[in-house]
Amino acid sequence: MDAKNAEDAKNAEAGRNAVDAKNAVAGKDAEDELRHRLLAGLPAEAVLTDPEVTASYATDMASFCPAGTPAAVVLPRTAEQVQHVLRTATALRVPVVPQGARTGLSGGANATDGAIVLSLLKMDRILEIDPVDRIAVVEPGVVNAVLSRAVAEQGLYYPPDPSSWEQCTIGGNIGTASGGLCCVKYGVTAEYVLGLDVVLADGRLLRTGRRTAKGVAGYDLTRLFVGSEGSLGVVVQAVLALRPAPPRQLALAAEFPSAAAACAAVCAVMAAGHTPSLLELMDRTTVRAVNRLGRMGLPESTEALLLAAFDTPQAEADLAAVGALCAAAGATAVVPAEDEAESELLLQARRMSLTALEALRPATMIDDVCVPRSRLAEMLDGTAAVAARHRLTIGVCAHAGDGNTHPVVCFDPADADETARARASFDEIMALGLELGGTITGEHGVGVLKKDWLARELGPVGLEMHRAVKQAFDPLGLLNPGKLF
Amino acid sequence: MDAKNAEDAKNAEAGRNAVDAKNAVAGKDAEDELRHRLLAGLPAEAVLTDPEVTASYATDMASFCPAGTPAAVVLPRTAEQVQHVLRTATALRVPVVPQGARTGLSGGANATDGAIVLSLLKMDRILEIDPVDRIAVVEPGVVNAVLSRAVAEQGLYYPPDPSSWEQCTIGGNIGTASGGLCCVKYGVTAEYVLGLDVVLADGRLLRTGRRTAKGVAGYDLTRLFVGSEGSLGVVVQAVLALRPAPPRQLALAAEFPSAAAACAAVCAVMAAGHTPSLLELMDRTTVRAVNRLGRMGLPESTEALLLAAFDTPQAEADLAAVGALCAAAGATAVVPAEDEAESELLLQARRMSLTALEALRPATMIDDVCVPRSRLAEMLDGTAAVAARHRLTIGVCAHAGDGNTHPVVCFDPADADETARARASFDEIMALGLELGGTITGEHGVGVLKKDWLARELGPVGLEMHRAVKQAFDPLGLLNPGKLF
Repeated sequence: MDAKNAEDAKNAEAGRNAVDAKNAVAGKDAEDELRHRLLAGLPAEAVLTDPEVTASYATDMASFCPAGTPAAVVLPRTAEQVQHVLRTATALRVPVVPQGARTGLSGGANATDGAIVLSLLKMDRILEIDPVDRIAVVEPGVVNAVLSRAVAEQGLYYPPDPSSWEQCTIGGNIGTASGGLCCVKYGVTAEYVLGLDVVLADGRLLRTGRRTAKGVAGYDLTRLFVGSEGSLGVVVQAVLALRPAPPRQLALAAEFPSAAAACAAVCAVMAAGHTPSLLELMDRTTVRAVNRLGRMGLPESTEALLLAAFDTPQAEADLAAVGALCAAAGATAVVPAEDEAESELLLQARRMSLTALEALRPATMIDDVCVPRSRLAEMLDGTAAVAARHRLTIGVCAHAGDGNTHPVVCFDPADADETARARASFDEIMALGLELGGTITGEHGVGVLKKDWLARELGPVGLEMHRAVKQAFDPLGLLNPGKLF
Repeated sequence: MDAKNAEDAKNAEAGRNAVDAKNAVAGKDAEDELRHRLLAGLPAEAVLTDPEVTASYATDMASFCPAGTPAAVVLPRTAEQVQHVLRTATALRVPVVPQGARTGLSGGANATDGAIVLSLLKMDRILEIDPVDRIAVVEPGVVNAVLSRAVAEQGLYYPPDPSSWEQCTIGGNIGTASGGLCCVKYGVTAEYVLGLDVVLADGRLLRTGRRTAKGVAGYDLTRLFVGSEGSLGVVVQAVLALRPAPPRQLALAAEFPSAAAACAAVCAVMAAGHTPSLLELMDRTTVRAVNRLGRMGLPESTEALLLAAFDTPQAEADLAAVGALCAAAGATAVVPAEDEAESELLLQARRMSLTALEALRPATMIDDVCVPRSRLAEMLDGTAAVAARHRLTIGVCAHAGDGNTHPVVCFDPADADETARARASFDEIMALGLELGGTITGEHGVGVLKKDWLARELGPVGLEMHRAVKQAFDPLGLLNPGKLF
């Protein structure tokens, strides 16, 4: 390098440093400006900018999803404060990531760089429970289990019961249209949302839906927000439908010599017109993992364990009929629970499944493929073939009555080859689901984890119309950017 | 008028005539062009342009809704033909009015001037009924009763049962998210639509939703189309959820000394956690009208007749409990049906109500206000006050369990003053519904009849977002223009 060039390089370096410094100042200025504006409409304790604190809000419970560094975390207590946050975000063109309890499994609540993380956890009031109208009016930060217990005290029932129900919030449940064990009889969260108050990207307050049992005035914008993963608006209040509390459920367990036989039993039960309150499947890997974690004493010789429950007045008779169908489909043992307590133990074993599978290896990726229940056997056999081909442990628990499987791909992230095989398996399972006429996500949502796969499921026209709807509600693209599509 | 002015007037007249003639030629040319283009993708018998024939497709069953003169009526048999119609409409900027059986009650299917009326009546195939997956796949022109009977043959149940179920089509039911008598237990049409094939305004085919029991991949565009009254796209195929056939229902009738007492019984029944398959109310005017039309022998001394039914295994016990609640609320008589046949007679009386009320006077306007069921008594008393104030007969039958009332305003259109009072009453009843926290339409839709009222119910932000959604799907505004908003 000659003197001239050295000088040029030095000047260029100095220039770069000056630009960096200026950007840093600009970045600092922008952050100060953001903080200043937020504080104009929020109390000081509701605006967090300490990087060590805000970092703890960066991710939900999904593995292997990128997350950025938020500029601020805000914890509003009123709809007006949420409106202020979104007006500020629009004015400064700052992205906003709405968050509940961050129990999601797809990275849908992960922060993006420079974003405002909008946590709804402090908006946690149950505003109304009405046994005559069978509705509850709640803020988004109410924990699912808190609501469930509160309505139970009045003889009512809020069915949606995601595994994380002791932590997850109604707002988060609405964001992903969460399911749970009850869905085979009671459906998912979407079916319990009658009306919403939503703050739009520009801060306007939109009221959708109703408090009535029926209503067809205009487009169903309520359902458009349910499952939109915070990308169309921020829910600040919800009117939820409730049901009368059913009798406590009674369960049975049936052991099968193959997953296919268990799936045949599921089909027979549904074709016979039964309406179980729960119809779950655990494969051999899951059963053993649960025994290992919880000493549950489940039968380890079984290839597939089917759990069925009824919450009807004639539960014993219903269980007997289902037991007979299981036997006809090849069950080697059918064991009805002695009582409600034993039934509850079986359910606990099922609820423990994901955690138990996660404990098998250093890391896991959880699929959420839902297929028509008539294709469930093909889905399980195909998943076993994927595991064999990639020499991996993939345990499957499934909401079998809904055809919704959770294959859990177990691997060691320190092993690059195994990690690559895990990733490939995770994808092949989704491809199989689509081939069988299913969906890539029955209840966990898309987030960042399944973005590429959503495009594949929707197809080009579907994706175009998704973008058009997003554009209609959030023309600046500020709400939860980089998620879904 | 002097000579000069006379000459000018003559020239002006000649000019006007020339312009009219030119427009007429242009109109004729445009119609020829439209017909020519339609025939490029449709068989001759599927394109009707004889004005005497097309006029018969101009209106649905709503009274007092304006209707225009269509340029053509098309009767496609395939999705590809529907795509051709919409591509043609987009190319020529011709509006399209989708139609089913035209049994609607809000003018939502009324033709507009120069439009293509797109009748889906010939797309009437049931493509699939699957008892394991509990779904049916149908074309939009399938008649509700035809589907209901076909699934019943396989031990299945398609609940939505609008009064017009022997004529109305599934496509029309989807367009208005129709209800019926079953809703108090089974919900409306929207809850049975899992997935749709929709032809968009520009002819692209969009597939929404799924065949699976659950699924949360992307926005719920399926529900956005349900109830959109043909304004966002044309449904050409639907995946519908089915249920196992329940036991035949058993009914009771309870007589009350006042509408308020009957409504108190409704609230008591729902608060006690019952799930009747039907909970209907007929006021004194309705009871008498039904007796007059059908010689049903209903008790004429009652102020309000409540019908309750259960399709549970323990229907007698459920009815006994509801009977006791009715007695406690002041019922003067509680009469359980002797058997299923007598139960069916009671239901027939209820189904006859609208027709019976329509027979009372030369014309009627039918409201469809739904309020929270806790406000039902106020709604009925308020409606009676409207009738008294305007010196009109307003009979009310109601899906009481849902809070969905159908006040039928009876009048003589030959009497201008009475007509004005009828119109005012119709509006005052909707205003009352909104005041009580209800909606202007529980199940009949908005159409042209309640456009002004939709704006009032949605509010300015709601209306803006409706327009934004419409713009996203139909930027040229060709689909069912002038309806909804």
